[in-house]
Amino acid sequence: MQGPPRRSPVSTPRIAVVGGTGPQGKGLAYRFARHGYGVVLGSRVADRADEAAAAIRERLPEADVTGAANADAAAQAGLVLLAVPYDGHDELVASLADALAGKVVVSCVNPLGFDKQGPYGLPLERSAAESAATLVPTARVVGAFHHVSAVTLWGEADYLDHEDVLVCGDDVDAKQQVIELARTVTGRDGVDAGRLRLARQLEPLTAVLISVNKRYKTRSGVAISGLDH
Amino acid sequence: MQGPPRRSPVSTPRIAVVGGTGPQGKGLAYRFARHGYGVVLGSRVADRADEAAAAIRERLPEADVTGAANADAAAQAGLVLLAVPYDGHDELVASLADALAGKVVVSCVNPLGFDKQGPYGLPLERSAAESAATLVPTARVVGAFHHVSAVTLWGEADYLDHEDVLVCGDDVDAKQQVIELARTVTGRDGVDAGRLRLARQLEPLTAVLISVNKRYKTRSGVAISGLDH
Repeated sequence: MQGPPRRSPVSTPRIAVVGGTGPQGKGLAYRFARHGYGVVLGSRVADRADEAAAAIRERLPEADVTGAANADAAAQAGLVLLAVPYDGHDELVASLADALAGKVVVSCVNPLGFDKQGPYGLPLERSAAESAATLVPTARVVGAFHHVSAVTLWGEADYLDHEDVLVCGDDVDAKQQVIELARTVTGRDGVDAGRLRLARQLEPLTAVLISVNKRYKTRSGVAISGLDH
Repeated sequence: MQGPPRRSPVSTPRIAVVGGTGPQGKGLAYRFARHGYGVVLGSRVADRADEAAAAIRERLPEADVTGAANADAAAQAGLVLLAVPYDGHDELVASLADALAGKVVVSCVNPLGFDKQGPYGLPLERSAAESAATLVPTARVVGAFHHVSAVTLWGEADYLDHEDVLVCGDDVDAKQQVIELARTVTGRDGVDAGRLRLARQLEPLTAVLISVNKRYKTRSGVAISGLDH
């Protein structure tokens, strides 16, 4: 499987990263920009988004990375990544409904809890990705990028080629776009994990990885065996 | 990391596989026996367990593999693997409470549902492994072996060395025993995934793998990146 071109074709949509100043959002934005995509980081406060964009441009001087308030960022993009904490997720998504309508919306949100025994998946009736789909019914919601470590994303390795990006969604074309976008992270297509409801399984798996990280003092990720790549 | 010796030391406890005639139980029993453990397969009907044991001995003529009714099998063993369908799980475990008391009990049970959209994790308050721990409070319950394909287990490869066995549990010594037992499957230690409650995440992940199997026509498994093995 071939990696992506270093510069994206003209038709590539600009990507917005809502929550782009958090470690996961900034790390993924760095990967998208590093492999040729134009990116607009969103934050509650536009100035903070500008700062994060400047930090990425410092490492990638030729990259097309800017900052904006979340709603403005989402409005500028054809594909919007939600990289926000689960706490407050539904209210934020509802507030962005107009800007998200009709777009490919990628959720990497992990609804986790932490207590003295460590991390765990919050018991929910539906995943964060399904909540976004319910709140913005015209959005083409895809779940992906839950399991890649923010530290590794922000690192210097060209690709996280020992990991897989698991992608779930009910809109086949939107899912395929995200499967291809995963090449910017792993150097190969993401893995089609199935229907959007399987985000209920993908999101809390991050609790297991955090637990492994603590036990083994590492930055773990997930790979799927039995595939030809 | 070294693989296990071909014959287990004298002190190795005999392993019972409750549900040993199902594909997952039989496949795991085959792996345990292939790498030196004595195994007793359990089934509701002892004759069926005998047949499954004979099928394993046909492939491993020197192996110590026998069959028995589930309760008799559990009573003979120091370590008991629960490899039964989730439907009827709680009733079966409750009926075996005496034979399971005080023992290391390993659950590879996957509470899944299937409908026209494919497989999904059943929405549960607690995992199958946690249910077993609640039903038999003295049992030292460990969750493991959820994600290895029955077909691959029954295959001829010496080890499933592209996969990891994720192991969770609250009893540190019991968990360590199962981490070492995983060597019979993958040729290396299982991965300590954390507390028993994380079985809530491990068990339904199998729905994702079944979905991947269908999409890619393969037998997928899980590997954890970022570990030194």
